[in-house]
Amino acid sequence: MIKIGIVGGTGYTGVELLRLLAMHPQADLQVITSRGEAGRPVADLFPSLRGHIDLAFSEPDDDALKACDLVFFATPNGTAMKSAPVLLAANTRVIDLAADFRISDQAVWEQWYGMTHASPELLPDAVYGLPEINRESIRGAMLVANPGCYPTATILGYLPLAQKGLIEGPLIADCKSGVSGAGRGANVGTLMAECGESFKAYAVAGHRHLPEIRQVLGSIMGGEPAMTFTPHLLPMIRGIHATLYSQVTSDTDLQALYEDFYADEPFVDVLPYGCHPETRSVRGVNRCQIAVHRPQGGDTVVALSVIDNLVKGAAGQAVHNMNLMFGLDESMGLDHVALAP
Amino acid sequence: MIKIGIVGGTGYTGVELLRLLAMHPQADLQVITSRGEAGRPVADLFPSLRGHIDLAFSEPDDDALKACDLVFFATPNGTAMKSAPVLLAANTRVIDLAADFRISDQAVWEQWYGMTHASPELLPDAVYGLPEINRESIRGAMLVANPGCYPTATILGYLPLAQKGLIEGPLIADCKSGVSGAGRGANVGTLMAECGESFKAYAVAGHRHLPEIRQVLGSIMGGEPAMTFTPHLLPMIRGIHATLYSQVTSDTDLQALYEDFYADEPFVDVLPYGCHPETRSVRGVNRCQIAVHRPQGGDTVVALSVIDNLVKGAAGQAVHNMNLMFGLDESMGLDHVALAP
Amino acid sequence: MIKIGIVGGTGYTGVELLRLLAMHPQADLQVITSRGEAGRPVADLFPSLRGHIDLAFSEPDDDALKACDLVFFATPNGTAMKSAPVLLAANTRVIDLAADFRISDQAVWEQWYGMTHASPELLPDAVYGLPEINRESIRGAMLVANPGCYPTATILGYLPLAQKGLIEGPLIADCKSGVSGAGRGANVGTLMAECGESFKAYAVAGHRHLPEIRQVLGSIMGGEPAMTFTPHLLPMIRGIHATLYSQVTSDTDLQALYEDFYADEPFVDVLPYGCHPETRSVRGVNRCQIAVHRPQGGDTVVALSVIDNLVKGAAGQAVHNMNLMFGLDESMGLDHVALAP
Amino acid sequence: MIKIGIVGGTGYTGVELLRLLAMHPQADLQVITSRGEAGRPVADLFPSLRGHIDLAFSEPDDDALKACDLVFFATPNGTAMKSAPVLLAANTRVIDLAADFRISDQAVWEQWYGMTHASPELLPDAVYGLPEINRESIRGAMLVANPGCYPTATILGYLPLAQKGLIEGPLIADCKSGVSGAGRGANVGTLMAECGESFKAYAVAGHRHLPEIRQVLGSIMGGEPAMTFTPHLLPMIRGIHATLYSQVTSDTDLQALYEDFYADEPFVDVLPYGCHPETRSVRGVNRCQIAVHRPQGGDTVVALSVIDNLVKGAAGQAVHNMNLMFGLDESMGLDHVALAP
Repeated sequence: MIKIGIVGGTGYTGVELLRLLAMHPQADLQVITSRGEAGRPVADLFPSLRGHIDLAFSEPDDDALKACDLVFFATPNGTAMKSAPVLLAANTRVIDLAADFRISDQAVWEQWYGMTHASPELLPDAVYGLPEINRESIRGAMLVANPGCYPTATILGYLPLAQKGLIEGPLIADCKSGVSGAGRGANVGTLMAECGESFKAYAVAGHRHLPEIRQVLGSIMGGEPAMTFTPHLLPMIRGIHATLYSQVTSDTDLQALYEDFYADEPFVDVLPYGCHPETRSVRGVNRCQIAVHRPQGGDTVVALSVIDNLVKGAAGQAVHNMNLMFGLDESMGLDHVALAP
Repeated sequence: MIKIGIVGGTGYTGVELLRLLAMHPQADLQVITSRGEAGRPVADLFPSLRGHIDLAFSEPDDDALKACDLVFFATPNGTAMKSAPVLLAANTRVIDLAADFRISDQAVWEQWYGMTHASPELLPDAVYGLPEINRESIRGAMLVANPGCYPTATILGYLPLAQKGLIEGPLIADCKSGVSGAGRGANVGTLMAECGESFKAYAVAGHRHLPEIRQVLGSIMGGEPAMTFTPHLLPMIRGIHATLYSQVTSDTDLQALYEDFYADEPFVDVLPYGCHPETRSVRGVNRCQIAVHRPQGGDTVVALSVIDNLVKGAAGQAVHNMNLMFGLDESMGLDHVALAP
Repeated sequence: MIKIGIVGGTGYTGVELLRLLAMHPQADLQVITSRGEAGRPVADLFPSLRGHIDLAFSEPDDDALKACDLVFFATPNGTAMKSAPVLLAANTRVIDLAADFRISDQAVWEQWYGMTHASPELLPDAVYGLPEINRESIRGAMLVANPGCYPTATILGYLPLAQKGLIEGPLIADCKSGVSGAGRGANVGTLMAECGESFKAYAVAGHRHLPEIRQVLGSIMGGEPAMTFTPHLLPMIRGIHATLYSQVTSDTDLQALYEDFYADEPFVDVLPYGCHPETRSVRGVNRCQIAVHRPQGGDTVVALSVIDNLVKGAAGQAVHNMNLMFGLDESMGLDHVALAP
Repeated sequence: MIKIGIVGGTGYTGVELLRLLAMHPQADLQVITSRGEAGRPVADLFPSLRGHIDLAFSEPDDDALKACDLVFFATPNGTAMKSAPVLLAANTRVIDLAADFRISDQAVWEQWYGMTHASPELLPDAVYGLPEINRESIRGAMLVANPGCYPTATILGYLPLAQKGLIEGPLIADCKSGVSGAGRGANVGTLMAECGESFKAYAVAGHRHLPEIRQVLGSIMGGEPAMTFTPHLLPMIRGIHATLYSQVTSDTDLQALYEDFYADEPFVDVLPYGCHPETRSVRGVNRCQIAVHRPQGGDTVVALSVIDNLVKGAAGQAVHNMNLMFGLDESMGLDHVALAP
């Protein structure tokens, strides 16, 4: 059993991590901290966990966390970078579900996140936790930067094209997310009466996931691609749909390319030719479903990629990384069937 | 492994049954029939099942079904009553998720369902599959009538009061259901543009679940109670919330009564005093959460009962019944955590 | 033209009032105050009002308000009771859309609202602004207490029975509201990820609208009725549905009773026998649709009553009251057609 | 008063047209036909219209329609092209809300719509009813082809760029529509349990609105642009959001360009720099709100354009066309305020 700590488990990423760990046969949850809810039973805040999680939230406590084999940070950006050094020094591994270690270039990170990085010395050894790219590095990692939700859907959708060098011209990633991606904070903008029955784009001028996507694709393409990334807010709770455009002049059989590329990946599922993935088909599970189209046989390729932002886009991918880091079967605790309808 | 057949697996009850059986360690799905979709891979119709269910729908075929240990009917009312005799004669057990065997009085059934019953001789031996009432009878049953969704939520909410003889005066069951309860048929009334962002009652003059509820409570109370049952359609997909009123003059500690009554039940969870259950806290799981209130200390008791209509209200309860009928651990394959948010 | 001021126009009641007044031929909006948004153009906060409302929010300013013929308070409870005396002394009429003047018994108000009333001397002259009951008093009123949303739907649903003395036994009002009724405050509980795709009751132990309903029905019935009032939160934005139960032993033709009772009311529409009103059919309009049922011809009557909580349950009724107070045609500016679907 | 007939008023376009005409001071609705609902009062099918529309649906009847000044076709594709010649010969004007007269090239139309055109001789005189382009031609037209919903949002979003010759490279129109755009037909795919809480693209290989958009933009640009058009289905009822990409190397001030271009248009509203339009801000009204962005000052321009698909995308634009054809004030009956929230 892996002794596990969670820092900051009161948000949606946290409760989803709790849900998955409660069903994981090798997870032994020891401690979960929250300043705001310390002392309160977890299942009191989240009645869906009654009978599954018996812990109460506790005050942040380095000693309790250092006694764990692994600590997940399900905190706002800027928290894990302060606490990670102490834990790593105690040989406790760390998976950060926030963005502190996702960007390897400190200056770029500081520009987009508006903070000074507290532990830049850790950046070179932090592994970007997208198993489809970094599986082997993750196995040996002490510190994993769990990818962002949009980057997961977007990178997986472009990856076969990028790896084969087929991408030409600027990329356009038109992405849509359910509101759980905006977190459990009390904001007017994500009230149901504000974002229900409506749809809009946001952060068109620039979103923090843009440099993350460009960095990762750039490392594969041998240079960061020009990209326009447009996030939108969907009137629903879970799910990301990335509609990904690229110019491609090669006459490669793209369906075969995608199917071959992901043939051995347990959590990426390429749909048959002509399909349109739906976010509900991956609801609650650690899976990315992808379809690739080439409308009217032209030079614009349209890849459609869906994930559950809280699972493959956050907590599920974190558990996948945990499985890799501790030598478990990759799919352990992650083989559920999506909840549809 | 239990060899399983499903008749009519293209509706919501059917696909939910497939989801649960795909995760059940003792279920060996052998055949699934559908006239309309015969020949089509199940995972083609339901992409959420890709990689989990490899069968294709087949034409109805008695021989294939008779070779199973158990056949589930996820069909419209009136189908199972025609096929059950053949299967039972072949020693294949049957769980009907429709209503054919729920009402023990043939005349009452025929009046409410508007059909002549094809197998009235089976009615005396059919067991009403609510394990919280009929656990022992279910274990030995060849034919189980899986309860309706509203009756499950309503009966469990009233049960402690009924068993203790505390109910006085007419009962009022004000119930609300998500639209998946109306099925996957192509009807204008359940289009999203019709029932989204709106709310209404329906069938106020009389709904088929009323005689079912009255029969079951009546068997416990020693006579059918007067009851008004008002179903409503919620603008959401899954979930039933029953708001249950009864006059009670006894000064019994109702919180203690409910907690004691359900203490050993694996799938009924009585919430702490003062709580209000939410349907999302049982989304996707075989659980009923209940709270009991007595506003202003008066004589009107308000019990709040929530289930997922497709799980505890249909497919999950059917799997629970299967577990009982085949001597398995009751909770086998049913110990998932609800998907919230 | 009526010179109008609005205090506190940044909530949902406020923006709905702005919408209706922008389309009202006799409304001349002079000032709208908001501490938090002072200086900001109204149409900047609410882009739906671009081109219709050119004002900016201003700091609260008694002189500007006193120069108006009428001031609406779309504020939290406890604000209007402090400002009303000054305005009334200046001969400016007041309509309070909050609860400060709805309960005529000061002690009852203070108990339910947890505050000391700042202007108890105004209570005797405040008129409860439900035109179907108090039309004549409203015409002459200086101070109108605009009814609560649940009370409007509930009282109108019971009114014909109450007036005819047909009600027997305790009343049960099972009410459901869209989330806009909870206001535009930043609360976790009304985030879309919390209340979307879910349903629950709340405040079952006691809700502030209960004494309001009992007071008004009591004034008609000659004594306050016993009542259980259960509010629920719907996963949608606008609309209230009240499902209203009463014991009635009289064999009065209830359909005829309701139709006759409301025959001359411009904003109450009794549906034909057997109908089930839907909240969407009154979306955006100042109308209450009602149907009355007597299931199985028994003694339990079920009245179904729907309104748009922001219109007939708040801003629309306030404009109706304004029309009455200023001698305009009752329906002026309120004759729109509901937005369905 | 304009004597009006409607053919096929039982779909969402039809009921929206009824809603708008009921509030139009010059509309005199004489006849509304429906084979399926003949004899049934309109307000029985659509209770939101009670008290506003007193007609009953009638059987199709050329004489009754020929007696009208104007006939709207709110029918499936392929109906208006059969009936229009008779009406035009009787000097009755026609507005077709379907697609029969939108494509001027008969061969292109027949290819995309899979039918032989019944009245190709009318194509040269049919006017494409987008007033922002064809205002003058519409004034004199006998036959108007009301634009499609996606084309309206897309063309208006690209129009200033197209007119100024700024568009370079292939266009990408990533569009999202609420489910009312799919009509009121009983299809499994638009059941709430299918498309609620989910999101997907559809018809990526080719949608009928693509040739319409290319034709109209092509007539302005002097040649049809290369374009990828990707429609998606939103889990909500009303609203279209078009996210429109174009390469632009010119350093023109795009904000000023858009504001100037639409300065005199009553139904197009360019939002201030940096805004993101929301579909709810145009819910129920004949308005298009647009914002134009140039992320990171690069060469990719992102125009965001929102409409209500049933109003500016269908019935509202049809009424606008009616106003123009009959010499009325353009905004007559169309000056409502959007229903938000």
